[in-house]
Amino acid sequence: MLRRLIALLFVTVLTTCALSCRAPANEPAGTLGTRVLVVERSSGSLAVYDWSDRKLLPNRIEGLGDLQHATMTFGPDLRYGYLATRGGRLVRVDLRTLRADGEVKTSSNSIDNAVSHDGKTIAVAEYVPGGVTLVDATTLKVKARVPATWTREGKVMDSRVTGMVDAPGNRFVCVLIEGQEIWILDPNQPASPILKRIPSGEGQAYDAMITPDGRFYVVGKLGSDRVAVLDLSKPDDGVREVSLADPSQAGEKAAPKKLPHMASWAVAGDRVFVPLVGEKRMAILDKNTFAFRQSLPVRGHPVYAVRSPTEREIWLSYSGENDDAWIDVIDVDSLQITHSIRAGRRVYHLDFTPRGSHVLATANADEQLVLIDAARYEIVDRVALRSPSGIFGPWRAFRIGL
Amino acid sequence: MLRRLIALLFVTVLTTCALSCRAPANEPAGTLGTRVLVVERSSGSLAVYDWSDRKLLPNRIEGLGDLQHATMTFGPDLRYGYLATRGGRLVRVDLRTLRADGEVKTSSNSIDNAVSHDGKTIAVAEYVPGGVTLVDATTLKVKARVPATWTREGKVMDSRVTGMVDAPGNRFVCVLIEGQEIWILDPNQPASPILKRIPSGEGQAYDAMITPDGRFYVVGKLGSDRVAVLDLSKPDDGVREVSLADPSQAGEKAAPKKLPHMASWAVAGDRVFVPLVGEKRMAILDKNTFAFRQSLPVRGHPVYAVRSPTEREIWLSYSGENDDAWIDVIDVDSLQITHSIRAGRRVYHLDFTPRGSHVLATANADEQLVLIDAARYEIVDRVALRSPSGIFGPWRAFRIGL
Repeated sequence: MLRRLIALLFVTVLTTCALSCRAPANEPAGTLGTRVLVVERSSGSLAVYDWSDRKLLPNRIEGLGDLQHATMTFGPDLRYGYLATRGGRLVRVDLRTLRADGEVKTSSNSIDNAVSHDGKTIAVAEYVPGGVTLVDATTLKVKARVPATWTREGKVMDSRVTGMVDAPGNRFVCVLIEGQEIWILDPNQPASPILKRIPSGEGQAYDAMITPDGRFYVVGKLGSDRVAVLDLSKPDDGVREVSLADPSQAGEKAAPKKLPHMASWAVAGDRVFVPLVGEKRMAILDKNTFAFRQSLPVRGHPVYAVRSPTEREIWLSYSGENDDAWIDVIDVDSLQITHSIRAGRRVYHLDFTPRGSHVLATANADEQLVLIDAARYEIVDRVALRSPSGIFGPWRAFRIGL
Repeated sequence: MLRRLIALLFVTVLTTCALSCRAPANEPAGTLGTRVLVVERSSGSLAVYDWSDRKLLPNRIEGLGDLQHATMTFGPDLRYGYLATRGGRLVRVDLRTLRADGEVKTSSNSIDNAVSHDGKTIAVAEYVPGGVTLVDATTLKVKARVPATWTREGKVMDSRVTGMVDAPGNRFVCVLIEGQEIWILDPNQPASPILKRIPSGEGQAYDAMITPDGRFYVVGKLGSDRVAVLDLSKPDDGVREVSLADPSQAGEKAAPKKLPHMASWAVAGDRVFVPLVGEKRMAILDKNTFAFRQSLPVRGHPVYAVRSPTEREIWLSYSGENDDAWIDVIDVDSLQITHSIRAGRRVYHLDFTPRGSHVLATANADEQLVLIDAARYEIVDRVALRSPSGIFGPWRAFRIGL
């Protein structure tokens, strides 16, 4: 009996220690800075890759549902990431354990989310039913549900909401697609969060972006070559309409206009580089006035333009089988394509590491995540992933509008 | 006996669990993003403050020696911070446990350090003996020791090194004070790391900075109103000398020139705001050409100018008893001082939180760290610290030159 008890004592100590001492080893925290979470669209999961170690982590976050256009944001304390899924679920990811840590169903179809600068609120843009949901970042409880409605011929209709971004002053900004209205929201007034409603001008919005300095909110319009620009430092002045058409090509028949997600606009130096879907050019605008400056002809239909942290290069991806495996590097000074890199078929997303040493890109059709040395323009790692799409690094927590 | 053993069993389980289960609770990781490490100069310690919780953490890192001008940098994976102390010790801080985690003595007097973009090397600028030390970030072993020498009348002399920064292409850049030379270094060639030696022009450097886009390296000169500017995209073109003197005040006797640390230059929009010690003005330069544009008169002798992440404001501190408790907020468009905030006597350092919602400032003489709501221009928290000085947030890991 005595021996058995002593044995039990040892076993208990060892087991207790083994169980509890394992926890820190499993805790991948503290090396968070070089990791990206990659949306695996068709399998409804997030994979985690460390670009410094060049290793896929064993942890995969699964069962996330429909991840089409899923975007991920991060709380300012880097404790959690937030994923708005197309199925209307807002899923919180623990960045320490790399596991899903709670979720809330905010609608049956969400498109976008953003984290307030104080880190206390997540705002979700909803398609069905249309509106904005404000969620408490700690409890994951809904703080406010703001329906988006508009009136046609006296009838009140539902409007989808998109282009949700964080903005200076602890604000959110979004746009009503059918309602044709920009909203500026204060999440700390959940009873009546809408501070301003500004008409977004003619045409239905399909997406919007905020410039990295948090000043301009730019709304793209469906089937239009015009965008609406709101100076958030003077919201009462309303939007200005800006044309992306090239005046020197005035006679040409306009191509069908369906702009890509506007996160794909690249602000570099004093210019904005706009990829135009359906045209083989980028439009270059003046950063301060948004006036059209010139066209930049490119090999195919551009999709995603990303500036390097040095603002000296634009890395550009394309749609269409002939071109979508390629990333072209454009020198901002000369506007020449200096390098072409074959990343893999159907490049869906690309992003720089924070100080610009590498670029990460997903080749969706080749089911690969690709790591490119941005100084040598060479692919240095390829990792097999399941239908990879958006790439989200925690450094986004520290930037306005991401 | 049996009862005692059973009791022992329980006690053992509880103790083992208590000891080992406490570990994760002590692990402050994952909420790293809203913390700053604050140099407590006279006590040789680092305090840790969470600006989101508005709480000083119980963990304090002590016994760090001489922390005059001590600067802290962070590895890209956010695992470690690195502090170069004036006593020549490079101390590594574990950002998970908030404890010192190894150190290496690189000289008897260091001034600056930087982390390479690949995170593998820490470069330390040494005063005595003068030179550069390259340290392996993982093992903390010295990879290379590069003495800085110069020749006067045939005699080889030692030169102090300062202005150590990280630069695109996994480079380091620094300047030799007496040697009057800028070095561009490749840490992955430890046998011969110096890629370029570029004369820094007339006069002894006292500090240098790199613009946030990683393009220009700017060297301040002792007792001179001129700075040397090197375009790192064309290093072989050499430096250009730029004057900070105001041509409209040409007849005035030049004040004694001793510029403050050049990390205090603020690049906002297309301008550079330069605080001029010994003069009651800032010089405003063109960001692309570094040409003098105008003077901006201010209340006292400016020390530290910091841009807001929106680049729409400059927050400015002063030296001298009459002014050094104040922070003035300058609107970048109008160049008007829009707000004056009394932070506390002898403001030593100030910095924005990454998306600009708050400003942290140290009032050294009042022994306080101050948290300011940057949208309301109101002090929202004050914490007692011992002789607080530099404030370092982990978001610096994600920016070029910090």
